[in-house]
Amino acid sequence: MDKVLYDTLLFDFYGALLTDKQRDVYHMYFCEDLSLAEIGERLGISRQAVNFSLKHAKRSFDDYEESLHLVEFHVRALGHAADLAVALEMRDFDESKEILTELMNLL
Amino acid sequence: MDKVLYDTLLFDFYGALLTDKQRDVYHMYFCEDLSLAEIGERLGISRQAVNFSLKHAKRSFDDYEESLHLVEFHVRALGHAADLAVALEMRDFDESKEILTELMNLL
Repeated sequence: MDKVLYDTLLFDFYGALLTDKQRDVYHMYFCEDLSLAEIGERLGISRQAVNFSLKHAKRSFDDYEESLHLVEFHVRALGHAADLAVALEMRDFDESKEILTELMNLL
Repeated sequence: MDKVLYDTLLFDFYGALLTDKQRDVYHMYFCEDLSLAEIGERLGISRQAVNFSLKHAKRSFDDYEESLHLVEFHVRALGHAADLAVALEMRDFDESKEILTELMNLL
């Protein structure tokens, strides 16, 4: 998966578990594409402190994903749903039911 | 939702985030239906320590659910999937597509 998309999905799923400051730093860096120096300037902290906060957030996300697999689940579920949409568009009931069964197993 | 089912779902989704000991205690109490005294005996800790561990685990689960809403999502997604299965069984394409759209929005 594209790395930018992956980092954004991690933020979407686990961002709520970060501290407010970590969340701000992560969002500015990965979603607003600001540099470490720019983020430091905005928040009135050093470039090193920004870097530390980012690394800590990223490690938390990796730990959460390793335990909960939410991003992996999301990508697989969306894949099944897209396949299902195609099967429905082609009015293929048997194929649709089969894909739905896989999706339900995933859920 | 049935409370036993809810507590089991919390365990399924967030159990991986507990410490090994908290996970054991929670599982024995909510899934194996052992008493505090029985769990304490098995683990060689006091009844009070078991109670403390359970309360801590439950509070962690509530905090995670408040941030991530995984149990809520799971229940809603399964509901849509069940509705979709019925619509497919009735070969109702339009209804199926409509429900799939809701499911995809949820995902």
